[in-house]
Amino acid sequence: MSDNSVIGKRVPRSDAWAKATGSAQYADDLSLPGMLHGKLLRSSLPHARIREIDVSRARALPGVKAVITGADLPKVKYGNWRLVPATQDEYALAVGKVRFIGDEVAAVAAVDRETAEEALDLIRVEYEELPAAFDIDASMAQGAPVIHEETPGNISVTRNIAYGDVEAGLRQSDYVREDVFTMQAVSHAYLEPCSCLAQSDDQGRITLWTSTQTPYIVQCLLASVLGLRENEVRVIKPHVGGGFGGKMELRPWDVCAAFLARLTGKPVKFTMTRHEELATGRRRHPMRIWSRVGFRKDGTLVAKDFRVHLDGGGYNSMGPTAAFLVGNFGAMLYRYPAYRYEGFHVYTNNPPAGAMRGFGAPQALFAAESQMNMAALELGIDPIELRIANAMKTGDEIPDVATISSCAFRECLEEVARRSDWKRKRAELKDGKGVGIGCYSFITGGVFNWFDTQYPFSAAEVRAYSDGTVHLLTMASDIGQGSDTVLKQILAEELGISMKDIQITAADTAVTPKGDLGTWGSRVTLMAGNAVIEAARQIKEELFRMLSVRFNLNVIHDMECKDGMVRVKFRPDRGMKFGEAVAMAQKSRRGEPVVGRGTYTPRDMGLVTPTFSFGAQVAEVEVDRETGLTRVEKMFTVHDCGKVLNPMAVEGQVEGSIQMGLGYALCEELVMSSGRTLNASFLDYKTPGALDMPAGESVCIEVPEPRGPYGAKETGEGPVSPTAPAIADAVWHATGYRCKDLPITPEKVLRGIREIDRAARHAGDRDR
Amino acid sequence: MSDNSVIGKRVPRSDAWAKATGSAQYADDLSLPGMLHGKLLRSSLPHARIREIDVSRARALPGVKAVITGADLPKVKYGNWRLVPATQDEYALAVGKVRFIGDEVAAVAAVDRETAEEALDLIRVEYEELPAAFDIDASMAQGAPVIHEETPGNISVTRNIAYGDVEAGLRQSDYVREDVFTMQAVSHAYLEPCSCLAQSDDQGRITLWTSTQTPYIVQCLLASVLGLRENEVRVIKPHVGGGFGGKMELRPWDVCAAFLARLTGKPVKFTMTRHEELATGRRRHPMRIWSRVGFRKDGTLVAKDFRVHLDGGGYNSMGPTAAFLVGNFGAMLYRYPAYRYEGFHVYTNNPPAGAMRGFGAPQALFAAESQMNMAALELGIDPIELRIANAMKTGDEIPDVATISSCAFRECLEEVARRSDWKRKRAELKDGKGVGIGCYSFITGGVFNWFDTQYPFSAAEVRAYSDGTVHLLTMASDIGQGSDTVLKQILAEELGISMKDIQITAADTAVTPKGDLGTWGSRVTLMAGNAVIEAARQIKEELFRMLSVRFNLNVIHDMECKDGMVRVKFRPDRGMKFGEAVAMAQKSRRGEPVVGRGTYTPRDMGLVTPTFSFGAQVAEVEVDRETGLTRVEKMFTVHDCGKVLNPMAVEGQVEGSIQMGLGYALCEELVMSSGRTLNASFLDYKTPGALDMPAGESVCIEVPEPRGPYGAKETGEGPVSPTAPAIADAVWHATGYRCKDLPITPEKVLRGIREIDRAARHAGDRDR
Repeated sequence: MSDNSVIGKRVPRSDAWAKATGSAQYADDLSLPGMLHGKLLRSSLPHARIREIDVSRARALPGVKAVITGADLPKVKYGNWRLVPATQDEYALAVGKVRFIGDEVAAVAAVDRETAEEALDLIRVEYEELPAAFDIDASMAQGAPVIHEETPGNISVTRNIAYGDVEAGLRQSDYVREDVFTMQAVSHAYLEPCSCLAQSDDQGRITLWTSTQTPYIVQCLLASVLGLRENEVRVIKPHVGGGFGGKMELRPWDVCAAFLARLTGKPVKFTMTRHEELATGRRRHPMRIWSRVGFRKDGTLVAKDFRVHLDGGGYNSMGPTAAFLVGNFGAMLYRYPAYRYEGFHVYTNNPPAGAMRGFGAPQALFAAESQMNMAALELGIDPIELRIANAMKTGDEIPDVATISSCAFRECLEEVARRSDWKRKRAELKDGKGVGIGCYSFITGGVFNWFDTQYPFSAAEVRAYSDGTVHLLTMASDIGQGSDTVLKQILAEELGISMKDIQITAADTAVTPKGDLGTWGSRVTLMAGNAVIEAARQIKEELFRMLSVRFNLNVIHDMECKDGMVRVKFRPDRGMKFGEAVAMAQKSRRGEPVVGRGTYTPRDMGLVTPTFSFGAQVAEVEVDRETGLTRVEKMFTVHDCGKVLNPMAVEGQVEGSIQMGLGYALCEELVMSSGRTLNASFLDYKTPGALDMPAGESVCIEVPEPRGPYGAKETGEGPVSPTAPAIADAVWHATGYRCKDLPITPEKVLRGIREIDRAARHAGDRDR
Repeated sequence: MSDNSVIGKRVPRSDAWAKATGSAQYADDLSLPGMLHGKLLRSSLPHARIREIDVSRARALPGVKAVITGADLPKVKYGNWRLVPATQDEYALAVGKVRFIGDEVAAVAAVDRETAEEALDLIRVEYEELPAAFDIDASMAQGAPVIHEETPGNISVTRNIAYGDVEAGLRQSDYVREDVFTMQAVSHAYLEPCSCLAQSDDQGRITLWTSTQTPYIVQCLLASVLGLRENEVRVIKPHVGGGFGGKMELRPWDVCAAFLARLTGKPVKFTMTRHEELATGRRRHPMRIWSRVGFRKDGTLVAKDFRVHLDGGGYNSMGPTAAFLVGNFGAMLYRYPAYRYEGFHVYTNNPPAGAMRGFGAPQALFAAESQMNMAALELGIDPIELRIANAMKTGDEIPDVATISSCAFRECLEEVARRSDWKRKRAELKDGKGVGIGCYSFITGGVFNWFDTQYPFSAAEVRAYSDGTVHLLTMASDIGQGSDTVLKQILAEELGISMKDIQITAADTAVTPKGDLGTWGSRVTLMAGNAVIEAARQIKEELFRMLSVRFNLNVIHDMECKDGMVRVKFRPDRGMKFGEAVAMAQKSRRGEPVVGRGTYTPRDMGLVTPTFSFGAQVAEVEVDRETGLTRVEKMFTVHDCGKVLNPMAVEGQVEGSIQMGLGYALCEELVMSSGRTLNASFLDYKTPGALDMPAGESVCIEVPEPRGPYGAKETGEGPVSPTAPAIADAVWHATGYRCKDLPITPEKVLRGIREIDRAARHAGDRDR
């Protein structure tokens, strides 16, 4: 592997120049002749029946071209879980009821944004306010308001995982502990707010440029809502300024833009404001996790009972997946002979939660890893040693779910202990300083076909040209994570050419090859990467045949594409330039171009994912005992993402994950009051900045994953999860205060410290 | 054939709605962030050495981002005849010399058009004026100024065709006549002036949106000029407002836009003015044709000697093709046992001529058909009968050149005589009224690979979807002639679906399949159409296999795609919906999409074309003896274009050809004075308007062409040629004046009539 030319190298992102110079076009940068601007009227109430909507004054405003409400749109519900239609619970514009503050009620298209906004003020909605439920308990209580008539108890989805005898296991355990953890809602805070531009043709067919992670999903669902056939909708992904799971669904503005474009005959653009994004946008699920876990005296895990309630908000969104994944991650990292998971996705009158980076793992692992740390303490075992003793290994199986095809978790634990000087610091640090540990695992793409795609999970077409260049076409979606770059790297390596020889066309449902499920679950490198390899190998095969002809080679000769050449291995004199070989192959086909076509669909890999990443993180903090403020001074992360295809990209993902993890642990929270988001601006919603980033090290243990391209597995999401439990552990180490309720705010820390002090004083009093 | 569903039907153009509503985007409608506007400085002299160019003041003008001259560009000459590099004689910006008034000397990119124009005025060019040659004779004269140093005699190309013994034939003829004809320069007068927009990426790769008929040619030549690899240039054809042969080359603005985009890092747009188009743009070749033809007494053609001089202007452009085709068309329509052609492409200091609708045929046929009419008169044979006696027939061969695979010329002649009431009118009309005849033939695409493409001549990819829709991808270029529509018709017919089921992506060199040579020579319907059929048949084959499985069919069953169904012929109960069959085929491939890929390259069809169209036209005119003004009252056209795929489209082409033919015959002329175009505006350059269009009939004789899709052959260019000779003949019939020097202006007619009157008076005087 060490003689790779491009794979494993520090390759800068292909889109860096375009983004840095401003030539990259995001959806809101696009413009078409006669284009109209759209705005959405949103519900001001958390739960209400709509008695009447009067749009007449808005329609009469000069410059307004159309105003629509739920009554105008086809009555088709949508949602990402197409395989289970009962989960599809959203209308683009409210029909009959609104279910959260911000629920979309009407849409306006006007000649400019100002006019559209003015028109919103002229729409009169008569509501009948209904009782609302703003948390899990209120929503599940007897007599609670019913949010969707089809779901009387407000539990829209339940998920179960079970293997081994949990009850017996817990009975037989030497040590059992039971904890409850809660996690807040946080925002993706992507830099680019959602935006889309729709154009209709004379048949009412739609072209939609939209800021999305999942062009194919948007295509299919938009078509079904508009009553069009799938391919009468074309979705094109422009440059996207981050998604983190928040842009993987069909959204009301997509529907409204398309519908209004058909209605007016003009292109229509919608762009969300930051306030709309923070106040009403998708968010990470607030959860409550109850976990009971049993150990033998020596620290061996025996059984675990894991029960999770998810606050889904007003609609399902990606909740059904969250409800499964959180249970899956509850069983990860360690060998649980018996495991039981019950997950409940609960409707409330909060803004709906959706998918977000690490999907299910940050919550599950905050609970599970915190519990592991607390158990270690009580068992008198070092938390890293407790983990090593129970760590999953290559070849392990999660019954009915997955096999662990590669795992360097133990190595990660050992390495993070060494690099962070864990033993010494855990023993010695004091005076408000502490170290703590958190670990993680994440999926590398999903296997279970909840969207019910009819196409391969990923596809790539590679066109090789006699000029030495190559064109890669794929529906894989780069949303800023760098997948275009890594796919080009893979292709360059396979064909022995350079990055500059490759042009890429991606994420246009009309012209790129079917299919692709989009960017989520850290799936792109493995799945689209494997498709690219298959396509490239078809081309190599053809070029090798030409080489055989040209040099009259023995049938057993080994050949390679390398350094821009197609050549006999170890016989560089017997070679031709890549483009020359392509020209020869093309001649041999009497002019027909040389094209390779590859696809990837995970088969015989269980239900969840082809492979899991693993990793361990140690946080070193200082807690100010006067203010309760926690400052993370160092962060050590050791990551098992298989072979590192691009160290710059992996570092970027790990650093970005730490930044997001820091926010989740310490400061980020969408503060809610009766369904209203109180801090819907970046002034009030605090994300860590560059100056908040800790020092430390991020390293990878490179154990090649057999199912991954060049041995790679995921890197973009796993490292987002360990940060909160590691910091919580370090805060405990520094102060004695154990936080089970994210985020770990100064207020909570102060209160925790004071309680400990009070208890100590109390104990002192009693002892005295 | 009569049970076709779409083929042969009056199908409106697919782009009609977009064009009528203004949503169609032409190159000049496009805009990109930071875009600059370009303007060209053109030579004010017809022939001069450039001593010095001072751009410093222009560069200093605020808002100017770059000024370039020939010294800045790579010294790479280009031209369409890539197969013969010696013919490539153009630089985008003049190097050393200018060769015509309008030759491009410098280019400016500025923040807006006004600033760019202002900058042009600030560029100081110091010329050393050289003697110039403004016509063929001056240019070929001894001691004439040498226009290109590599071509001392100014004859850049000579072409010869010869078969049979012409000298013996003429000696043995009973009747020989010799004439000289001259034709003027005319403009394409397309509605959309040339325009392009170039964008560069960080590697200097170019995306160019340009108003072109030939994306592939522009791609290849632009790459070679810029020193890029072919596929480092991507050419996208937006909507195009007509080309007529005038947009089939790489042009200086394409090069300058791309170069300036690389230089400035900003997108750069150029759009020509109408003045630039008329004063300096490509035009139909002015020619002088000397023709000697011999007949037997009974009218049988024996031999023909055809010598042509083309005024090519300052550069070759498409002159090498013109010099061949005019000789080819001189031998068409009739059986010439012996034929000799010599063609001379002559450089002059006029603006360069290029390809234009009918390419070579309007000139060749004005001469040949006029001569036929004059010969008929002197032989005492009706001109239509003389033609019938010599008419080409299916199966005829033009030695070494082509076979006539279908020909209904005789039927066209008979039909046009009948419809126009020829016999009666030719015998009876008087008082300034007359009828005249002209005939024509045209190629249906070219065989000879002058561009030296490495790819198939045409290609189509057809993606069939389970939703019942189909996506056609092709590099074929609709420039307003309607090829997208006809290709969709062919595909709809093949797959038994409707036009609305089809989406098309065309003419983008990056994403549409290689290759296609562009839109010229009436090639698209036949070549791209055949590629579409091949692709569609692959899909049908796959669907038929599914039908066999589904209904457990006997291996001998016949099947069809028809009415949206895939079914057993004559057993409509055994069928499934098209989309259902596609879904089944896709399942049988475990999700891989159903795609057909077809190509077309003409083989075993000689050197010129797969097949020729034929036709005959009768013009009925009234000549005002006071003013000399000729008014065409009726026009009867009978056209052999094989099977008519879309009557609306064919009618449009024939009507459009008549309009252009009228202009060529009567009023259009780029009036030149010492190399300067005197009438470079639509006020002064007169094209016929709707009110000038004659009544009459245009009908088709539908004899299926075996090499054409559904039996079709060309229709877009042939009918442009007969109009001038038919009108000249009718004017003769009306007045006795025979015009051999286009256009037939009132001045010439008046002068002709007066000379005849004078001669008559003279004869009367003498007789008296």
